[in-house]
Amino acid sequence: MKVSIFGASGYTGGELLRILVNHPGIELSFLTSREYEGKPVHLVHPHLKGLLKSKFSSMSEAMRGDYDLAFLSLPPGISKDLTPKLLEVGIKVVDLSPDFRLKDPELYERWYGWKHPFPDLLERSVYGIPEFNRDVIRYSSLVAAPGCNATSTLLASAPLASLGANRLIADLKVGSSEAGSKPSKGSHHPERSHAIRPYSPSGHRHQAEVEQELRKLNASIKVSIIPHSVGAVRGSFASVYALIDVDEETLWREFAKLYSNEPFIRIMPRGTFPDVKNVIGSNFADLGFSSDEGFGRATGFAAIDNLMKGAAGQAVQCMNLMLGFKETEALLIPPLRP
Amino acid sequence: MKVSIFGASGYTGGELLRILVNHPGIELSFLTSREYEGKPVHLVHPHLKGLLKSKFSSMSEAMRGDYDLAFLSLPPGISKDLTPKLLEVGIKVVDLSPDFRLKDPELYERWYGWKHPFPDLLERSVYGIPEFNRDVIRYSSLVAAPGCNATSTLLASAPLASLGANRLIADLKVGSSEAGSKPSKGSHHPERSHAIRPYSPSGHRHQAEVEQELRKLNASIKVSIIPHSVGAVRGSFASVYALIDVDEETLWREFAKLYSNEPFIRIMPRGTFPDVKNVIGSNFADLGFSSDEGFGRATGFAAIDNLMKGAAGQAVQCMNLMLGFKETEALLIPPLRP
Amino acid sequence: MKVSIFGASGYTGGELLRILVNHPGIELSFLTSREYEGKPVHLVHPHLKGLLKSKFSSMSEAMRGDYDLAFLSLPPGISKDLTPKLLEVGIKVVDLSPDFRLKDPELYERWYGWKHPFPDLLERSVYGIPEFNRDVIRYSSLVAAPGCNATSTLLASAPLASLGANRLIADLKVGSSEAGSKPSKGSHHPERSHAIRPYSPSGHRHQAEVEQELRKLNASIKVSIIPHSVGAVRGSFASVYALIDVDEETLWREFAKLYSNEPFIRIMPRGTFPDVKNVIGSNFADLGFSSDEGFGRATGFAAIDNLMKGAAGQAVQCMNLMLGFKETEALLIPPLRP
Amino acid sequence: MKVSIFGASGYTGGELLRILVNHPGIELSFLTSREYEGKPVHLVHPHLKGLLKSKFSSMSEAMRGDYDLAFLSLPPGISKDLTPKLLEVGIKVVDLSPDFRLKDPELYERWYGWKHPFPDLLERSVYGIPEFNRDVIRYSSLVAAPGCNATSTLLASAPLASLGANRLIADLKVGSSEAGSKPSKGSHHPERSHAIRPYSPSGHRHQAEVEQELRKLNASIKVSIIPHSVGAVRGSFASVYALIDVDEETLWREFAKLYSNEPFIRIMPRGTFPDVKNVIGSNFADLGFSSDEGFGRATGFAAIDNLMKGAAGQAVQCMNLMLGFKETEALLIPPLRP
Repeated sequence: MKVSIFGASGYTGGELLRILVNHPGIELSFLTSREYEGKPVHLVHPHLKGLLKSKFSSMSEAMRGDYDLAFLSLPPGISKDLTPKLLEVGIKVVDLSPDFRLKDPELYERWYGWKHPFPDLLERSVYGIPEFNRDVIRYSSLVAAPGCNATSTLLASAPLASLGANRLIADLKVGSSEAGSKPSKGSHHPERSHAIRPYSPSGHRHQAEVEQELRKLNASIKVSIIPHSVGAVRGSFASVYALIDVDEETLWREFAKLYSNEPFIRIMPRGTFPDVKNVIGSNFADLGFSSDEGFGRATGFAAIDNLMKGAAGQAVQCMNLMLGFKETEALLIPPLRP
Repeated sequence: MKVSIFGASGYTGGELLRILVNHPGIELSFLTSREYEGKPVHLVHPHLKGLLKSKFSSMSEAMRGDYDLAFLSLPPGISKDLTPKLLEVGIKVVDLSPDFRLKDPELYERWYGWKHPFPDLLERSVYGIPEFNRDVIRYSSLVAAPGCNATSTLLASAPLASLGANRLIADLKVGSSEAGSKPSKGSHHPERSHAIRPYSPSGHRHQAEVEQELRKLNASIKVSIIPHSVGAVRGSFASVYALIDVDEETLWREFAKLYSNEPFIRIMPRGTFPDVKNVIGSNFADLGFSSDEGFGRATGFAAIDNLMKGAAGQAVQCMNLMLGFKETEALLIPPLRP
Repeated sequence: MKVSIFGASGYTGGELLRILVNHPGIELSFLTSREYEGKPVHLVHPHLKGLLKSKFSSMSEAMRGDYDLAFLSLPPGISKDLTPKLLEVGIKVVDLSPDFRLKDPELYERWYGWKHPFPDLLERSVYGIPEFNRDVIRYSSLVAAPGCNATSTLLASAPLASLGANRLIADLKVGSSEAGSKPSKGSHHPERSHAIRPYSPSGHRHQAEVEQELRKLNASIKVSIIPHSVGAVRGSFASVYALIDVDEETLWREFAKLYSNEPFIRIMPRGTFPDVKNVIGSNFADLGFSSDEGFGRATGFAAIDNLMKGAAGQAVQCMNLMLGFKETEALLIPPLRP
Repeated sequence: MKVSIFGASGYTGGELLRILVNHPGIELSFLTSREYEGKPVHLVHPHLKGLLKSKFSSMSEAMRGDYDLAFLSLPPGISKDLTPKLLEVGIKVVDLSPDFRLKDPELYERWYGWKHPFPDLLERSVYGIPEFNRDVIRYSSLVAAPGCNATSTLLASAPLASLGANRLIADLKVGSSEAGSKPSKGSHHPERSHAIRPYSPSGHRHQAEVEQELRKLNASIKVSIIPHSVGAVRGSFASVYALIDVDEETLWREFAKLYSNEPFIRIMPRGTFPDVKNVIGSNFADLGFSSDEGFGRATGFAAIDNLMKGAAGQAVQCMNLMLGFKETEALLIPPLRP
């Protein structure tokens, strides 16, 4: 089958390519980049030299193409207009932007500042975490894949939500590639190296989508996300705290109940904990838990590679389901450690 | 005045020396090291070459010496026996180990596994955070200086405790030098570089001392500490969460009330947040706060250099008070950034 | 076919496993570890959890086994005694230690301090760089695979040697994983992070094997290797300097002549240069060159992943040749960037 | 005395401030920044909050001011026009740009592409390395301070030049802060972290000034500089190679002869080597050497902090000489390690 990538010159684009060059059932169609149109892909992704010979296309070229599925790896607010045109000509869409993640159109006005032009498509779209929505993803033509912080928070939170927690505090630690390939003051190497600092610690945009998904498990749940920048390049680590009194045995059972058959979830044995070092470069999510019984606190931990299970890996996992491939096809890339 | 350092070959010892070589009122007496006895100090601390000419001494030599104050930078369980001997001959003590931090002798059995031999000294000792106990430190001959995680947690927690929070969740992010200068699997460069992982997430030893100090502000407070290893070398960052509904104006006032005259505390303006990058190499603690009002969460943030305000810097700050120097003497070292 | 790994708990062992779990023609037999015998492999290599179920074996168990090929990833001086026993029962050997790299037995006394017990095997063994010795490797049962610094130096040096350079200065920059998984003072995270320092800058052991191989191109060549530790985890970067007056066009032609058909060599276009970031996790070697004509200096650059093209990747490349697989089988793993 | 800093918002500006806030004889006049005019200095240098209360001024304001000395920390090509105006009103100048480093005006056309407007001032200016030009700096009103790569190369090269080497190859390894505080693709954290790569490996601009200074020791010397970017934030490490046959005893004597009375030079004992980790945050330059006698190679090593001995520290060292302070005033800041 043929797929195109809109926005192929960024980090998520690079990861999609890294995965797809080894996917036996996929042929690459158009790889768009406004900045690098006409130039060879390996100019921007020099690590992929020798593994693919494509050149970047313009978006308008790609809009006229014929292929089975498009990955949209574009800034917020662009794919909401592109998507209907692609769906219309029978091209399935995995959108990595937030444009189709929220079911309630009013939330777009509140969090993103624009009125959603296609509220009917919001109903049709599926939130792209296979662990929660596998069967619907399989028969969907529009999947809205979540980003890294939402994914790690959701995976660590679901068992706590199932156990009845109503208020979750998610302390996130994130690597620098999360902010994308465009240089900025905060991601300048001398400034970011060895940094430890919070950013946007109240009213994080992704709370809305996380709450939307968790309310399927617990209708009254509220989530507060506090992300922190650390000096890693890759990794999103979620420590999710709930003030509920459950022991570790119960936590372990709940994690096992939700995830034990999942091909990309690895639950850490009791007393050991996830580390982003163990998932780098892979689509695995390593989960753990801890209970401070004297205090009355239960915690879920999740470690993912922000560009893989937090972006490109999960998007390909959705694609595999949508196009009828084996869910793990091309995705059992072992993590790179050390 | 003359001071000695017991355990001068570790990282905290190195930092004490870095500060004290520029202290106009201090002369170095004995610098002990079991492993490097008789060898020049710059062999172990090559960065200090040319700044001091001392050699390491044995502990028994140092015990017979004549000086005004001793810093004890030793593993848990050693200073509890040394301290009475030093006090007896009129030598003041700043102990950087946990041996004299807890007032309740039974807590030593519970958390450290040994019965404290000098419970009377526990009553005499003062917990060495000048921001809380300045006046008592000034007239004390035995100060038990806290470590980095307790210090950052306490500084970020106190305003929340004052505002009535009963249960605090302290999510800590810590650099690798916290674990000391001895190589270990977890601190091996390939393993630690770019890591993000929790350790000992329930029942952290330092909870006892943190609760002890905070109960002066709020008698019923409980604290749960969850430390995380990240890939920085220096830094302890505390994000302390309380489920209380206060706005940022109130938080700002409480931080200002407690800390506005403190020489080493810098409160970040509302909407900006601390970063360990801004305190590296210095005795400053940068504090910040955030409120998620819809959710009902108040947060205190603290960034310190674990070896400075979290160890050697704070110890010298206590020494300055105990020996009658200006509190900031030798400690207004500007942070190193980038 | 079946293969065993002697010394499977170290970093090279981990990389061999990361590659081989995806090799369609290979089944893993014995994975030895003295320290972890009987324990599951994922205890030591937690990133590989879910990808293989093996346990570590003892060396004696593995010596009695029946398989086609053994990788020996052991400290210097051990495989020289194991190898004859394996060869005797028809097991092919890829030795990653220096025990069979040098043809001249006297060099072992000089550089390693012991007399080689099997000088006849030295004649039979092949130095395992496929780019130089592909056809002999194919029909050999004993291949001595070089380490990272020798590999990067050789790849960057060969074109200069061909062009007549007699004395080469190889300035190497190496990541911390090169020193192995055992913690040490120099690899302690606080000490190694952001370090830049030379080590053993004269009389480097690997000069002997590098000169041995380069003399096939230029009989009178001498090489001086000066390795430097930098704060990366992976990567060996060689900058090889020769005082010869050749222009970049000539350099480019020589690199192309030697390497243009090589599956794992990527020659950088003139004016661009290799970066270890572009080869991390892969078996690629990126090569570049520069000429300072006014000065009379020609330079070859090589960037490899020290654990891949500098160890496990190259060893599997040799194995593929020796067992009749496609040379690139399981090795076209795209590099991980960023 | 009063000093101003032109270009105070960059990294070198921040370091000048970090030093000068503790200089007992200096009062800060104007701190210019085009971008941040009127804003408090700690907005850009948050680490200095509480240590100074200044605001940034415009350059035109600063040009009308009355003070004793100006540091010019500006991009190439600006200070050449400012300097004469400052000198005219009796303000001494330490220029950190290349505008007054070269004696031969024609070299500006060749290396920088513009004709120097004040060739007479080139004659008057002094190259600001106190170790070479102390006495002239003392009585000069215009000092052109070199950058980090030239400084580390010169310090490591001088003994080799004295010993008769005619051609020096300087392999440099440099941290990311060398490129300044402005974000760029190459300094983007995900791209730079753990990188090892050369840049501009032929025809490096600073060769001209390095040769100019070394020719005072050896009239026929030629230098080829090959800088490499590594993942450190601070540090410039020079490994300078000469094909001369001298033993280490001779090298040691030559280093000692040139540098043994220097307050900021520390010569490593034979068999040990400099590490940038030992000079971070300080004005020290740690020097070492090695000889590969069989090969006929002598090497000088130099480790400096690029922002200190490679920029701000050295500039203040020059200022101390020019204004009659003790040369080490405010500069005996101990290095920060680990």
